[in-house]
Amino acid sequence: MFEAAELGRKIPKAEYQKQVPELRAGLLEAQRALREAKVPVIVCISGADGAGKGETVNRLIEWLDPRGVETNVFGPVSDEEKDRPPFWRFWRTLPAKGRLGIFFGSWYTDPIVRRVYGQTKSADLDLELGRVAAFEQMLAEDGALILKFWLHLSRKAQKKRLRDLEKDPRTRFRVSPDDWKHFKLYDKFVKVCEQALRRTDTGYAPWYVVEAVDDRYRELMVGRTLLESIRKRLAAGKPEPKATPAPPPSPPPTPEAAVSVLDKVDLEKKISDKQYDKKLAVLQGRLARLSRAAWEKRISTVAIFEGWDAAGKGGSIRRLTEAMDARLYRVVPIAAPTDEERAHHYLWRFWRHIPRAGLVTIFDRSWYGRVLVERVEKFAREDEWMRAYLEINDFERQLVEHGIVVMKFWVHISPEEQLRRFKDRQKTAYKQHKITDEDWRNREKWDAYELAINDMIVRTSTREAPWTIIAGNDKKIARMQIVETFCRRLENAVKKNRR
Amino acid sequence: MFEAAELGRKIPKAEYQKQVPELRAGLLEAQRALREAKVPVIVCISGADGAGKGETVNRLIEWLDPRGVETNVFGPVSDEEKDRPPFWRFWRTLPAKGRLGIFFGSWYTDPIVRRVYGQTKSADLDLELGRVAAFEQMLAEDGALILKFWLHLSRKAQKKRLRDLEKDPRTRFRVSPDDWKHFKLYDKFVKVCEQALRRTDTGYAPWYVVEAVDDRYRELMVGRTLLESIRKRLAAGKPEPKATPAPPPSPPPTPEAAVSVLDKVDLEKKISDKQYDKKLAVLQGRLARLSRAAWEKRISTVAIFEGWDAAGKGGSIRRLTEAMDARLYRVVPIAAPTDEERAHHYLWRFWRHIPRAGLVTIFDRSWYGRVLVERVEKFAREDEWMRAYLEINDFERQLVEHGIVVMKFWVHISPEEQLRRFKDRQKTAYKQHKITDEDWRNREKWDAYELAINDMIVRTSTREAPWTIIAGNDKKIARMQIVETFCRRLENAVKKNRR
Repeated sequence: MFEAAELGRKIPKAEYQKQVPELRAGLLEAQRALREAKVPVIVCISGADGAGKGETVNRLIEWLDPRGVETNVFGPVSDEEKDRPPFWRFWRTLPAKGRLGIFFGSWYTDPIVRRVYGQTKSADLDLELGRVAAFEQMLAEDGALILKFWLHLSRKAQKKRLRDLEKDPRTRFRVSPDDWKHFKLYDKFVKVCEQALRRTDTGYAPWYVVEAVDDRYRELMVGRTLLESIRKRLAAGKPEPKATPAPPPSPPPTPEAAVSVLDKVDLEKKISDKQYDKKLAVLQGRLARLSRAAWEKRISTVAIFEGWDAAGKGGSIRRLTEAMDARLYRVVPIAAPTDEERAHHYLWRFWRHIPRAGLVTIFDRSWYGRVLVERVEKFAREDEWMRAYLEINDFERQLVEHGIVVMKFWVHISPEEQLRRFKDRQKTAYKQHKITDEDWRNREKWDAYELAINDMIVRTSTREAPWTIIAGNDKKIARMQIVETFCRRLENAVKKNRR
Repeated sequence: MFEAAELGRKIPKAEYQKQVPELRAGLLEAQRALREAKVPVIVCISGADGAGKGETVNRLIEWLDPRGVETNVFGPVSDEEKDRPPFWRFWRTLPAKGRLGIFFGSWYTDPIVRRVYGQTKSADLDLELGRVAAFEQMLAEDGALILKFWLHLSRKAQKKRLRDLEKDPRTRFRVSPDDWKHFKLYDKFVKVCEQALRRTDTGYAPWYVVEAVDDRYRELMVGRTLLESIRKRLAAGKPEPKATPAPPPSPPPTPEAAVSVLDKVDLEKKISDKQYDKKLAVLQGRLARLSRAAWEKRISTVAIFEGWDAAGKGGSIRRLTEAMDARLYRVVPIAAPTDEERAHHYLWRFWRHIPRAGLVTIFDRSWYGRVLVERVEKFAREDEWMRAYLEINDFERQLVEHGIVVMKFWVHISPEEQLRRFKDRQKTAYKQHKITDEDWRNREKWDAYELAINDMIVRTSTREAPWTIIAGNDKKIARMQIVETFCRRLENAVKKNRR
């Protein structure tokens, strides 16, 4: 793979000076077009120590309008980052639409380094690279242009480069003992990198291996590749979804399947006020202790609430929060996105709110909007909501793998009960703000929603992050069921996670 | 001060149950009105251990629409927070316009605790409280409604409360050894709190001392006070600026003063290409080493660039960045704010970009927009830009006190030179994007800008964060002066800050 980058390619100075002005003008123009087309660009710069990654980035910034570029470097993981899944630090730095994000090392660094130092096996690396590929695919399908550069030095060239840097007192500081340690592992390093590049060299996020010995050649190659990729991307418009290494989506939904999931729900159950009060008090006491225990053990919880309009999500959430210390939870309502949120992948706004260790975040509506309202109202294209199942499952798996308890509640009511509640809201002064024309419009699309809900539950109720369908016709039954489920899930996590 | 909160006030259950429904309806209605009026509300809940701060917040969230409320708790300072001035963690949690932020303990906790434990003197506390008062004043003048509750327990009541909590196995966990340690310092604690409350009990951010023994009394008092304050605030509209404990602004600008500052600049200096190339290379080498040394010593830099249109800010910034490792700096262009930025105080968007320890952030245009373009174009009212001088000086002082190097460059050119450059830009294809109608319009307001610039420099060139006025007619002279100043300031900081 790297042989083709050990040919001693060079660019004479005169030629370089001739090419640069045109390249710069082209890049500036391309940047303006990107801004208008609202395409985010992700450029990963990776490669051997001493291959000139920093110099290359500096040159790019010099050529580009630096106001549209962000550079992201990933040093030691901060304690705020440690509290979240590993990809959180990358999500928080993704460029907005129309901007260019340059990533040093990026999501490739850790998997490669761990493998080179023997902390992981080849199969582990493949697994990690699979996740990387899924991440890049998701961003690409959302419209991002992704380019990855590998600046390659042969063993001999790397040795010479490190020696040269050490000889010059002005650059000596750039060679660390770590660099020589890495150098000793050169062969292993190349082998692992080759595995990494091969596994993640996709049509939507290609690798470009660049011979890095000659500065001028390296810079021109990176600059020209970037320019050509932008031009090609802008000429092509938004790419169609491609065949992917991830598993294909499950078969299309059928009305019969839709019936089954929600039909199982027994909406007739009732409970007396007295019994309810007694049982709820016990459950809430249990929740108070468990949420405290989870905090002490640094176990985070992400709970989401979806349900029909007027199903009683708010009241249910309140029964949870009133039992917990207000210092331990946060309720995040999902309404219209801000413009910063709109300028990113739809999951970005949820990654923002992943809690620190030990805390609870309750989402009042969630990322499932993508496969519910956005699907039914056709705000998202079919291929967009179809692939959202995979994206969501992957997102939740990352949370679960990080030890976060993921709870998903669908609060179900019958259409008759909804009608009764809508009418009640219209009659009662302090409830009127809770009913809008949109609620009535949504109600007319009951069947389409039912299909979408069934699909959602079938495709995203996983073992680690199962859906709990709540019988909501009786509010007391619903609330008890929710608090009880919350307690049970938390208790399991606390027990499992002994300190 | 606290005697009035030791009277044994109680609310009978029947009365409480009678009052709550009306209060709840009122709060929900007030919240909707707040959203429309775009008023952010900041509620601080402070007070003795065991006074029921958590219960009170829970009750508020129960009564309010939790979707418009954020709760903020401040535990140990994270490493990302440690890298910035102490107020950064508060800025990042301020509620957006129309939302309600509840702060547990908040900016009062640390100053009070340090004083109680004898780590600071009374004069230090006063100084810290002065900064708190200035912070609250700034937010209030920007339109925020600020309420601070002090939940008070007498010595006897606190002892009883802690005992009661300990007796009940369900609440025992809530009493920590720290609570008893604090209790032994009760008298000292009350004395310090009294000083803190008196010093910061202002018209724009009043303290409400609430007797905390009886749950129902405490909750109703807090809820009703919140409701009345919101109603009063909404009825009054945006408050006029008030007399403040901070020093009054300096006398109004005069045209004579405006002449003097910029007139001193010698725009005639020239340098030969050869000399420039030689000197710049030396300076850039120095900058490379210094920026690396600053990173090693964890010294951060915030550099801002202001100047006439076409003064050459971009080119100057590039001469700095091309000398530094791309991993160490970030350029932040200041264009139109995003809607999240617009929903906060104008300084919020700059606090967001304060770098982590050891890094350099370069702002291409900055918070000085408030006293330049916003003043001249009348986007800000006179009282708004007048008080901005104080706010900005305070902001920069916080950066400097945290050890951050603050550099401010004004790049000056003559009107004749500007005209020459505008025409040149129109003629040259790859420069045309750099000239817009707005540039021509701004040029017509040269005199108004000159007045504003002079004012800005007079009022905000402080010893710790001085302005450097750059002679920009000759680009080479300007760039050298900037790189040279940058090096000198960084060198001083690196020398001073020996590890």
